[in-house]
Amino acid sequence: MGRLTGGDPSLLRRINSAVVLHALRGAGSPTLTDLTRATGLSRPTVEGVIEGLIESGLVVESQPEEGGTRRQGRPARRFRFRVEAGYLLGVEIGMHRVAALVSGLDGRIIGASSREVSNTASADDRLERVRLVIADVLRRTGIPRTSLWAVGVGSPGIVEADGTVRLGVALPGWTGLPLGQRLQRSFRCPVLVENDANAAAMAEHWKGAATDSDDVVFVLAGLSPGAGSLIGGRLHRGFGGAAGEIGALHLLGREVSPQELFSTTDEPLRPLDEQAVAQVFALARQGDSRAQAVVDRFMRRLVHDVAALVLALDPELVVVGGWAAGLDGVLDPLRGELARYCLRPPRVTLSLLGEAAVATGALRLALDHVEKELFAVEGTVSPAR
Amino acid sequence: MGRLTGGDPSLLRRINSAVVLHALRGAGSPTLTDLTRATGLSRPTVEGVIEGLIESGLVVESQPEEGGTRRQGRPARRFRFRVEAGYLLGVEIGMHRVAALVSGLDGRIIGASSREVSNTASADDRLERVRLVIADVLRRTGIPRTSLWAVGVGSPGIVEADGTVRLGVALPGWTGLPLGQRLQRSFRCPVLVENDANAAAMAEHWKGAATDSDDVVFVLAGLSPGAGSLIGGRLHRGFGGAAGEIGALHLLGREVSPQELFSTTDEPLRPLDEQAVAQVFALARQGDSRAQAVVDRFMRRLVHDVAALVLALDPELVVVGGWAAGLDGVLDPLRGELARYCLRPPRVTLSLLGEAAVATGALRLALDHVEKELFAVEGTVSPAR
Repeated sequence: MGRLTGGDPSLLRRINSAVVLHALRGAGSPTLTDLTRATGLSRPTVEGVIEGLIESGLVVESQPEEGGTRRQGRPARRFRFRVEAGYLLGVEIGMHRVAALVSGLDGRIIGASSREVSNTASADDRLERVRLVIADVLRRTGIPRTSLWAVGVGSPGIVEADGTVRLGVALPGWTGLPLGQRLQRSFRCPVLVENDANAAAMAEHWKGAATDSDDVVFVLAGLSPGAGSLIGGRLHRGFGGAAGEIGALHLLGREVSPQELFSTTDEPLRPLDEQAVAQVFALARQGDSRAQAVVDRFMRRLVHDVAALVLALDPELVVVGGWAAGLDGVLDPLRGELARYCLRPPRVTLSLLGEAAVATGALRLALDHVEKELFAVEGTVSPAR
Repeated sequence: MGRLTGGDPSLLRRINSAVVLHALRGAGSPTLTDLTRATGLSRPTVEGVIEGLIESGLVVESQPEEGGTRRQGRPARRFRFRVEAGYLLGVEIGMHRVAALVSGLDGRIIGASSREVSNTASADDRLERVRLVIADVLRRTGIPRTSLWAVGVGSPGIVEADGTVRLGVALPGWTGLPLGQRLQRSFRCPVLVENDANAAAMAEHWKGAATDSDDVVFVLAGLSPGAGSLIGGRLHRGFGGAAGEIGALHLLGREVSPQELFSTTDEPLRPLDEQAVAQVFALARQGDSRAQAVVDRFMRRLVHDVAALVLALDPELVVVGGWAAGLDGVLDPLRGELARYCLRPPRVTLSLLGEAAVATGALRLALDHVEKELFAVEGTVSPAR
């Protein structure tokens, strides 16, 4: 970021600055006395740090509240963290839609936009949609592109550390795509790419169904389900970034393919056509027995996939998300099966964030990056959740 | 341990002591000058620490080598870590045998003992066998029980942090057994209990097939297979200590039970009779087609279990151990299946420690405990592997 000071700051200055900024973010509008108490630093040190932070644009003197009771004498100066000093973008690239969220430095969402995209769209077309949806949300919120401090992206597939998609069978032209690099061209700030299920797991932990647990498996249900896992509050990516990519599990020693799974006629469904799947779910709810049999098969497979993850990882909590419709019926069978087969069944719940989970997780990714820059002086402060 | 100094040492003294001891253990017989260089501490500080360590029995002045070329003048004093200052015990409690290993403080094994035990033995009988095998190895090595600094134990089942077996269906009377507490009565030093597959994973990482990888799944093959996982070099126990307990996985959505799996006649095998299973493996090697079909079924199930773990965790390396015989045939089918279904197939190899894996891992558990006491001053030193 390089915004904190003009030159290369000393470690001590960095630490003090991070400590004060951290305290400022946690409080409403603290006074110098409040900050001295909260940080344990001397008053002159806090004053010096605050002046530097004001110069850098990260802190501002807050105005006394209008209409508040005036006390005698000059009121103590109060300060606040300028969440509007920079902005963050969270982007979802999905099979049927792309979406973008924007927030200030506190991670509070101030704008959103999404567009449909065909599941057969080429990588170029899909990326063009992504650019449109980003331009749209920036225009609507009036935020200049240059004010972005970090961009997070959630995408299907196994994503390398440099943002390249190592393997992504769900989207045409996705395997081998240097996704981070392609998107980076549109921004001056860092662009961070993560697997969609991993991003969704982070999102549910941040502001969804998993805020009270650090050992979570998030299952992104779909024709080719994926999962993201948090162990001790940290994302478990696996040695090659492929942890939780359980889409192939049901194929082991079985004959049925994902397409066969959802076939109600002799004609199998088109590969990965989730909208057709949603129709099958709807038919089943209307009492269609053939559709019900298909839904049952889907449930069995989901239960099997989740059970495999649970047996391998032993999480405290399983969050099921992905398809917005039809998933509530999965909870009871899932709980029943897990209770039968798992030695220590976890709690099972539905996603609270629903469709917004992947983009929210991508935003969290961007926020993590910025918080690391702002707050993380090794071994001193850990950023607040 | 409380052996380092008489009173409660100051943090600085503890740190210095740990640093010097660490350097001593890494070197052969260093001089004070060597230690000053290695630790960055002043010579008087090193001298003071060394005197304290000699008093506590952890360090001794080493004798000049006999027959070495004598140089002019008095030779510099040399010191060594007294690996014989204390001893460690690693205990395996298995279905068919119990075993114990003993080592000095460097973890080098200096004695071993094992006994057969019936798979139908009661918990009391099995524990009695454990006591016999421990008494035997101590007698043979001439080590007094009071010289033990820590005892590690590997056992089937889900083991709680306090050493209670929460669930252990493989051994009669095992579920609910306060195993740590029962064994603790025989020792004055700490007794640490861990799941057998977890212990074996630690062992392979320490001195077996996984010394070059920190992201490992160890599969303990058997009628009810279990697994232990290391993530970033650390054991992943799971939220409730049940991670890797994949024994039930194959039951999901299937009809076949472990007994049916190995039935070659209408009469199913007795539950958990691994010796009968070994006979089936032997028959298959002799060309018996029915036995071969059974072995094929076993392989398919093992492949499925391992694939589930690999998809969930994405390790760098899979180590297959457990049954000593017949497992080499599993590698090629396993590699083939993983290559077909896993997005990023891991390396697959056989256990190097074989039968000794669980007891060796239990020993490592004891060593970890002692090293933590001796070396771990938070944020300063990490023990050498």
